[in-house]
This record gives sequence, structure tokens and C-alpha cells, in this order.
Amino acid sequence: MIIVMSKDATREQIDNVEKKLSDLGFRTHPIFGEIKTVIGAIGDKRLLNTHAISSMPGVESLVPIMKPFKLAGRELKQVPTIVEVGDVRIGGDEVVVMAGPCAIENEESFIGVAESVKAAGAKILRGGAFKPRTSPYAFQGLEEDGLKIMAAAREATGLKIVTEVVDTRDVDLIASYADIIQIGARNMQNFRLLKEVGATQKPVLLKRGLAATIEEWLMAAEYIMAEGNSGIILCERGIRTYETATRNTIDLSAIPVTKELSHLPIVVDPSHAAGTWKYVSALSRGAIATGADGLIIEVHHDPGAALCDGPQSLRPSKFSQLIKELQPVAEAVGRIL
Amino acid sequence: MIIVMSKDATREQIDNVEKKLSDLGFRTHPIFGEIKTVIGAIGDKRLLNTHAISSMPGVESLVPIMKPFKLAGRELKQVPTIVEVGDVRIGGDEVVVMAGPCAIENEESFIGVAESVKAAGAKILRGGAFKPRTSPYAFQGLEEDGLKIMAAAREATGLKIVTEVVDTRDVDLIASYADIIQIGARNMQNFRLLKEVGATQKPVLLKRGLAATIEEWLMAAEYIMAEGNSGIILCERGIRTYETATRNTIDLSAIPVTKELSHLPIVVDPSHAAGTWKYVSALSRGAIATGADGLIIEVHHDPGAALCDGPQSLRPSKFSQLIKELQPVAEAVGRIL
Amino acid sequence: MIIVMSKDATREQIDNVEKKLSDLGFRTHPIFGEIKTVIGAIGDKRLLNTHAISSMPGVESLVPIMKPFKLAGRELKQVPTIVEVGDVRIGGDEVVVMAGPCAIENEESFIGVAESVKAAGAKILRGGAFKPRTSPYAFQGLEEDGLKIMAAAREATGLKIVTEVVDTRDVDLIASYADIIQIGARNMQNFRLLKEVGATQKPVLLKRGLAATIEEWLMAAEYIMAEGNSGIILCERGIRTYETATRNTIDLSAIPVTKELSHLPIVVDPSHAAGTWKYVSALSRGAIATGADGLIIEVHHDPGAALCDGPQSLRPSKFSQLIKELQPVAEAVGRIL
Amino acid sequence: MIIVMSKDATREQIDNVEKKLSDLGFRTHPIFGEIKTVIGAIGDKRLLNTHAISSMPGVESLVPIMKPFKLAGRELKQVPTIVEVGDVRIGGDEVVVMAGPCAIENEESFIGVAESVKAAGAKILRGGAFKPRTSPYAFQGLEEDGLKIMAAAREATGLKIVTEVVDTRDVDLIASYADIIQIGARNMQNFRLLKEVGATQKPVLLKRGLAATIEEWLMAAEYIMAEGNSGIILCERGIRTYETATRNTIDLSAIPVTKELSHLPIVVDPSHAAGTWKYVSALSRGAIATGADGLIIEVHHDPGAALCDGPQSLRPSKFSQLIKELQPVAEAVGRIL
Repeated sequence: MIIVMSKDATREQIDNVEKKLSDLGFRTHPIFGEIKTVIGAIGDKRLLNTHAISSMPGVESLVPIMKPFKLAGRELKQVPTIVEVGDVRIGGDEVVVMAGPCAIENEESFIGVAESVKAAGAKILRGGAFKPRTSPYAFQGLEEDGLKIMAAAREATGLKIVTEVVDTRDVDLIASYADIIQIGARNMQNFRLLKEVGATQKPVLLKRGLAATIEEWLMAAEYIMAEGNSGIILCERGIRTYETATRNTIDLSAIPVTKELSHLPIVVDPSHAAGTWKYVSALSRGAIATGADGLIIEVHHDPGAALCDGPQSLRPSKFSQLIKELQPVAEAVGRIL
Repeated sequence: MIIVMSKDATREQIDNVEKKLSDLGFRTHPIFGEIKTVIGAIGDKRLLNTHAISSMPGVESLVPIMKPFKLAGRELKQVPTIVEVGDVRIGGDEVVVMAGPCAIENEESFIGVAESVKAAGAKILRGGAFKPRTSPYAFQGLEEDGLKIMAAAREATGLKIVTEVVDTRDVDLIASYADIIQIGARNMQNFRLLKEVGATQKPVLLKRGLAATIEEWLMAAEYIMAEGNSGIILCERGIRTYETATRNTIDLSAIPVTKELSHLPIVVDPSHAAGTWKYVSALSRGAIATGADGLIIEVHHDPGAALCDGPQSLRPSKFSQLIKELQPVAEAVGRIL
Repeated sequence: MIIVMSKDATREQIDNVEKKLSDLGFRTHPIFGEIKTVIGAIGDKRLLNTHAISSMPGVESLVPIMKPFKLAGRELKQVPTIVEVGDVRIGGDEVVVMAGPCAIENEESFIGVAESVKAAGAKILRGGAFKPRTSPYAFQGLEEDGLKIMAAAREATGLKIVTEVVDTRDVDLIASYADIIQIGARNMQNFRLLKEVGATQKPVLLKRGLAATIEEWLMAAEYIMAEGNSGIILCERGIRTYETATRNTIDLSAIPVTKELSHLPIVVDPSHAAGTWKYVSALSRGAIATGADGLIIEVHHDPGAALCDGPQSLRPSKFSQLIKELQPVAEAVGRIL
Repeated sequence: MIIVMSKDATREQIDNVEKKLSDLGFRTHPIFGEIKTVIGAIGDKRLLNTHAISSMPGVESLVPIMKPFKLAGRELKQVPTIVEVGDVRIGGDEVVVMAGPCAIENEESFIGVAESVKAAGAKILRGGAFKPRTSPYAFQGLEEDGLKIMAAAREATGLKIVTEVVDTRDVDLIASYADIIQIGARNMQNFRLLKEVGATQKPVLLKRGLAATIEEWLMAAEYIMAEGNSGIILCERGIRTYETATRNTIDLSAIPVTKELSHLPIVVDPSHAAGTWKYVSALSRGAIATGADGLIIEVHHDPGAALCDGPQSLRPSKFSQLIKELQPVAEAVGRIL
């Protein structure tokens, strides 16, 4: 850590900061510049709350040298993590596709979609039973009935299932059905939920928050990992920017950035990023070529009648065609799909 | 609602959309332009899920004419809401100041700060017992012990107390202590939590999400109000932008905007917006002059030793001086402080 | 155009707005809703200033139905534009690569880089002679001497050359040397410069502004096209967002969006977007797979000694290897490179 | 400057960086941490291009300790700058109001507005003769005829005049008429224009770019000051964010931030920030209370007929009433208006 003192800092203030750092277990190393003094503080104290130093008199700013995440970072674990969900491996050579509707609406149509996406090549089935909706008047999901339908679809198709949890009180219930538990964008910093999901030891699909930095996202992963659960799949789903031509702005540079900072696998959700099915194909190709370990795509048997996110859902036939387009792209970057 | 059809939409597609709208209870009104057709759909159907129309073939976009919030909006309730917390009225002539430390650390110092802020003119005491922290290794709050300390401080000073809830499982506990329940920025779209807090019928301080639009914020209020709880105090606390000179960018235009769209009172948190105590005074003056109904300010007896948010906390003496600066500003805009 | 009247609008105000629209040549079509009235105004009047209507009494908002760009849009010209620069065609089957250093520093090294990038497969040579730099104390370019060096490099290699113009006074000079004139991100809304560059009738590489919407970008193209110059190549180079892990956030969804709205070709600049050479390879793959018509990449013979943008420049050997990686990706999406 | 080496940096790489720093005139000071090495480089070398170091092998990042601006910063000039425009002083005790229409449309109405705003208390008259418009089909200003009308209005009222320059070729012409030359938001990084305007030695109103950081804005001021012109008035006019409820998001925290970093005065433009006249009053009050040295407000005799920015313009009567509201606010913060 580097502490930058303001140009008017007194010698006494500098000494006080050094003393405090030393009390916290750091070795200190002041550098007296022409105008300002900076203090190097040696010691990896990420687990320590050193924030208070920044409010000591004479301190201008703090510059951390180490990343704040330990477990999620590359520094202690160089080798990429492969998350295993039964025989499906996320983060290996294969690009894994997850697909399904936004919300589960009824058993018949859900199993129909499940069969279609399986036939097309998806390995994991997505579907929402508990839906976080912007409006209290919108459809909120079938809740446990939805989970039962998901289980039936798994039975019928052999696909693994991923579904979202939105309340700490539902974690056990959802964990008893799902193969992968999803933390949605709006709950990325619902720290209590992260802890509870961490405690289940189930694989977690961790969506990036609507306006979360990559560092905050990896700190959310750190919350889950601090509970002993390292089966985390990051999911980029677009961030909020000033641009309104798409619902969110897909940040594909998050792929090489997280690959550099972290050992965790990353998948991309082009459906939520775009907000319209029309761009899903182009963004899916881009995500795979950039290096994504998988995709999660909304597919609905009749988007015009969907209770949720119809405009961004593909019909099964389009989805099947998309997978065929994606296979050569995966191959071109040395992956299998 | 206006439905814009794409320029290649066929007559049949236009007819299908009209039929669907009609089935949903709208009266329709197509306008055939030179290049595109638009369909006016008459009927206030905000409580209806009309989203699916946007994925019908030939539809380019949907333009809502009515705001999506009913209870939180000005359309059904013109007169401003005054939230009463005992004898403290938020949204009336008085500018109400809430103050206290980020986290409750121990009884002695907390009651000390409580007495200071009361002497300076604050009416409500803030303090965190359950803290949402970016790092799992940071201090997470004293939990129920913290609530007990808050209650003791209320006893000692007569101040009302406001504290944050971060988990649906804690709502009843917190409601049994707090005078106002705070929903933090990170939980603004934790819809389950909003519902539970709505059900308590206690006044709620609803912070704006880190990157929430004003419309989403009012929809969060709508969630609480849909449970029959109308005692909502909006709280602007800075939004996330590209600018890093301040921790967040305070959006004071949110004051006139929410006053136009909604009847709910709004207070401003300059401490979290700025991220440094140095700008708290200027932003507090600006907030009151712009029309805020109150302020919530972090005050700590020794910011350099604070377990949380030290850099943005004022010492009690500075806080007392600030209130003196604010009184003429409040008066200049016809308010009392 | 749809005019939304406020719910308190009087009948007289509605009539006034209708009359004004009618005076401007629109046919009007009022729709009286339960709470609000909207007025449909038929007629494609994009070339008309209808903005003033939004400040008439009783008007709440204006909803344009047609896009504001005519020449740059798809509505009047469905077939994609191919920009021809000698025998290089941008927007056709081939993915065209432009490469070279940020700034031209001296003839020897520039020609050396030119030869390397040509050998690797680039078709167009980039290099800055007039540099817009954030600091007045940074190297500002060799000016006309730089242009002469570019011309010599073209002579030596047969590559076409692209270089930036930053001042209306230099347009003729630069047009006399360059094959493609570049408008940089900071000048995307320097409308006088756009007009002058339009008047040269030379191909233009139009970078997206740092925080420009896609609509504003296409309006900048419209300025150039309104001068009769339709040889425009759009260039996505990252936008400003809250995320600081990369210098800018590359917006690859701009590719399908501009392809839908416009007939103009689009290339991607991964170097400026990332701000570091480390992510250039991944983002280049992603751009091509998403559908970019080309790339513009910074290459320097010795990045550690570069006078400008060293950190984001590739060495010639890395560039050559990158092109080899990109070829199968281009093929996978049906393109040649 | 602090150079952070990556954790895999070799001893040789560290030595190379030290040597390069030493060649550039820095004294170096390596600190060997447990995991990473950082190198302190002593010497105020802001005028030097040290950027290249960041692309040397083994270097992870550079942390500047000194701000990049010298002339615009507080470090070399502590005392606030007061810009004198005849007998009007900007940056002193008085809050100075500039007012007038977006564009000059004809002499009669412009002089009418000038007389009204003077009577209300404005000291400076604004008006556009050269207009940067998003659409090439929108009214672009009366050009020199507009300047002549401005001069006539100055003659008639005694007000000082401020008007925008958008092209280096017009600088001398505009300087021959204007008392203050305005650099608009879109040209804040038109560096050639900054230099030319600097050379005129006339006072400059420097608007913040649409998405400019405060640091970039002060670097733009530095460009002007590097030409020997220190009469710069900063102007906050709203920044681009994800929020669309206002045209831009007014960043009032820019007031205390620039006051801390710089000695230059700052005024606020609530009209462009809000995009609607309805919020101008609230934001003007907020700006003054936060500490602005002045305001620049759009006033038009008939907003519904304005050729430019009608929706955000006040009628003269509203403007006059606004000034009366602002006077007690200015007084409350120890200023005169």
C-alpha cells in the first residue's frame, strides 16, 4: 500500500501515519519528494481494515498495490478453475451453452423448450421460478411449482438446471432442486444471500451487477468463496451506460480482464445485454471468439406470448440455427461446442 | 401506449397487434404515416403486463404514455406526502437532519455522538447495526447488540432512530427497534426485502440504487406502497458515473424531478455521495437550496479510528458548525432548520 | 412524430399544437386517452426544425418516429455501402486490417513498421502527424513532415494511408496526402471539421466520440454525407463508462446496431478501447466474429520507447501472429482476411 | 510517481526501469514488498512524457502523485483567480449572472431580451452566432451578422457579451466582437481551438465536455493557460450519465472539487444541464448555495418559437422572478447578487 501525504502535511502527521501503519503490522518506507511525501507500507494485509488511515490528518489518498480479492484472484491460484456440474465442465475446452425461457410458465411448454434446446446442443437448462421484476404488478414466477417443473424437465432430458434465488429464506429450497444456483445482477451485492449460497457448496452462476466494476464482481465471488465454495461461474450480462440502443452495453472486454485477474470461468448472457433477440446471434459469436467459456441464452417457444422478456427470446428453431453458426467460431479459437 | 410498427410491417401484422391490444382491453387507434404505422392504444393498463406486444412480428418499439408507477406518482395523489415519525415531520416546512456514524461500534461513543448531533439540531439518529460491506473481511456490524445500543441512545436523547435492514429474515427484529427502516442503495431492487419492509407499515428511508434511474427508484417505492405502506422517504446518495473525483456523483436534479413525478419527500446523503468529508458542507448547502426535505450526514467522534466510512465522516464540532451554516440557506428558500 | 400532452393540458392548448403542426405541413391525428391526449403528426419532416413544439404550453414530450438521419440510414438505402480506397474495399467480404503506430516519429522506424504490417497482411497504414493530446506538454506530432514520411511509406510498400485531421485549416493539406482522412473521437462533433472533410470527397474514417450515442455518431456521418461525400467508414473505439479496468469499454453491440440502422461499414479499434496491448488479441477476435468489416490496430517497433500510446501498441511480431489467429475466425463467419 | 512492478517482474526488469527513470532525471527509491516491488520516482516531471515507462517489461501500472496540470492547479497559485471583464469581476464576492437566448435570431428580439435581463440583474449577455448543432439540417446561426447584433445589444445596454467559437478560422473575428469567448462542451478537447483562443488573451468561458472528467477539464484550461492566457472561467453544464430524466446530470460536486484543485472561478449552466426550463430555478438555487461564482441561463422572449433550445429557455418575466429568488440564497452563503 502507498500512502500519499498532502503537500501541506507536517512532519508530525507523517510520523503519526507511520506509527499507525507500524501498529497494524506493516513495515514502512517513507519517500520524501520535492513537493509531497509518500509512504510505502509493506505487508499483505488485505484481510485487515486499513481504510481508516485515509482519514488521518495529512493523508491525501491511499493507493492499494495488491488486489483486494485473495481467493478469487490469480495470485494464489494460477491454474484456471473448472466448475464441474455432474459431467458438464465449465471452464475447460468446451464452450457450454445454457438455454431456456426467462420464466417457467407451465410444464408442457417448459419441457418442450427443454427438449428443443437439448437437441440443439445445450447442456444446461435455465428457467426462472422466483423472478425479480421491476414492477410489483408483473408476473413474479411460479415459485416452488416452477422448481418442480424444472426437476421434471431435468428428468425428461438429462439437462442440468440453473435457476435464480432472490431471498435468503429460499436458499435451501432452491439448493434442493437446482444443479447451479444463480445470483442475479440485482443481488450481486446482496451479501447475506452470497454467504448463504456460499454455504450450500453448490455451483453458483454469479451475474455481474448492473453497474458493478469487475473488482466489485470479484469481491462478490470472494464472499461466496470465503464460505468454502469455489464453484463459481462468472456471468457478464451487460452493464449500464449512457447508450440506450441496447438494453445494456455488453462488456466483452470483461472476458480477458477477468481471465487475467481471476482463475474463475466466465460465461456471457447476450440476451439480457441486448434486450432484443435481433443482436443475440452477433453477440454470441463475439463472446465465444473473445474467449467466453459459455453462453446463457433465452429461448421461448412463443416469444410473443411470453410472460417475461419475450422481446429478447429466441424461438427454438432460431436457437438451433445459432448453435450451428457458433460451432465454427468455437473451433476457430480452439474450443469445442 | 403507442406501438410503433416497423416500416416493413405487413397489414396482417398491424391487424394482429390491434387484435391483441383489443383483447387486452385497449381501444386502438392506428395512424398510417408515410413510411411507418403507429397504433395508439387507449386505456390505463399499467397493472397489466403488456410487454409481450413488443415481441410480436412487425413491432419496432413501444412508447408508454403513462408512467409505470401509480401509487408513488403525482397523477393519483397531487398533495405532497408528509412522513410522520412521532413528532418529526419529513416533507413539511422543516428541513430534517439525520446524523450519526456509519456503523455502531460501542455504546459509549455512540451515545456521545447522539448527544452531540442532538445538541447541534439533528432530529433523527442514524447508525448501522447490519452493514453491507464490499469486502467479506470488513467489519459487518454489531447486529442485534447494535440495535440495543441504538435503543439506549434513543432513550438517552429522545432522537428517533433509523437503521438499515439487509436481509428479509431480520425485518421483524429491526422493525421492533427502529423508528425508520432504511433500505440501502445495494438493496433498492431487492424486491422481497421491499415487500417485507412494506408489510411492517413502518416509515422507510429508501436510498436510490447505485445506478438506478429515477423511474426504477419510484418503482421500488411502488413495491413498498403496494403493501399498503406509504411512509416512504426517498434518499438521493449519489449515482455511479465515469467521474472518479468523488465517490459517486450527487444528482441534485433528482430533487426537482422526483418532486414533479411523485408526492414523496426526498432527503440527500452528501456523505456517501462525496466519499470525503471535505465536500459535505458545500453539498449540504446545495441540497437544501435545491429543495431537499432533509439531509442524512455521517458524524463520528473520531473519524481516523472509524471501522467504516471514516474518510467521509464529520467530527461533531464540524457538524455543529455545518448546521449553523445551513440555517440561513434553509431560510432563504422558505424552510426552517 | 407523436406529441404527448400533459394531463392538465387544456383543449385550447391541444388545438394550438395541432394548428402549429398543420402550419409546418403535418397531417394531425389526436388521440384522446383516459388521462392524457397524444397527437400523431404524419409527414416525414426530418429536415425541419420541429423542436420548438416541445416548448409549447401543455406539451409534455415529443416522440420522434423516424430516425433523424436520412442519408446515413437504412431507410432510403438498403444495400450496404462498400468504401473503395483504390483496390481496397471496406464493407465487402474481406475483413480489412489497418495498422501502424500512434504517432509518426521518424522515417526509418515508420517505414520499418509499414513493411512489417504489410507482410503480415494489413492493407492500410495508420499513423498520426497531427496528434490531439490531453496534455499541452505531450508530443503533438511531426505535422507536414509526418505526412511526407507517410507518403514515402506508401511509396515503399503500396499500402494506403489513413491519418487524422484536427483543424479545419489543415484539411486541404491532409487531403493532398492521405487516402483516408480520420476524424478522431474528440472531434466527432466538431461540425465545421465534418463539413470540410465532407467537401474533400475523400474516404473518411469516423471514430465514435468518447461518449457519443450511436444516433449522434450517425448524425455526424450525416454531416459529412450532406456535403455529398458518402465514403464513410464508422470506427468503434470504446466508450466512456464507469468501468476503469480498461481505458474505454468496447461496445461490440455497436456492430449489429449500426448494421441495422445504417448501410455504412464499421471497423473496430481494439487498441484505444483496451488501452493495453494485452487485450488487443481477444477483442480483435471478438470484433471480427461479431461482424466488424475491419480492424485498426496500433503497432510500434519498440512500444517501450513510443512517444505516444506505447502501452497499447503491439510489436510487429505479435501483430503478425495476431493476424494468423484472426484468419480462422474471419473464415468461421464467412469472411476473408 | 510510483511505478508498480508486476509480481513476476525479474530483477533485471526492475533495474531497467530504475535506469530509465534515472535517465529521465528522477531519483529512484525501490520498495521490495512481499509479493510486488514498487519504485518511487522523485522529481516533478509533469512537463515530461513519462508515459512510455508503463509499457516497459515487468511494469504493471504507474501511479502519478502530482496532478498533471501546473498552471491551472492550486499547487503553484493558492489565491483564487478573479477574471475581470471590464468592471465585472468573476470569482469575487459577487455571483455574476449571464443570460440570453441560445441563438441570436434577429436584432429586435435580441435587444429586447438584453434589456430585460439587464433590468433583472444580469451583467453579461449570452447569445450564439455560430451554433454547433447535432443535425446538419438545424439552424446553424447568423454568423457575423449575429456578432454585429450582439455588439449593438452591448451598445444599447452596457452588458458585456459572451459568445461561442467553433472553428479556429473564426477566432480573430469573434475576439474582435466578444468580451468573453466561449468554448462549448463539444470543443473542450479541440486542442487547436484552445491554443488559438489562448493566444487572443481574452477571457474564456470553458465549458466542461459532455463526458469530461474534472482532470481533463483542467487540462483543457492548461492548454489555454500555456499560451499565457489565465482569464479562464470554468463552466459546469451537466455530464452524460445513464439517467435520462434530465438532458444531462448536473454535477454540482464539481464546484467544491474544482475549488480544491484549482484557483479558477466556476459558473454553472442549469439550462443545458436540465434540458427543460422547469428545473432551472431549483438548480440555480442549488448551484449558488454550493458555491458557484456565477450562472449562465438561457432566456428567450418566446420559447415556443425559438430556433434553438426553446424547451430549456425561460421567459424574461420568469428570469426576473428567478433572480429575486436567488438573492437571499446568495446572501445566505455570504455572496452578493
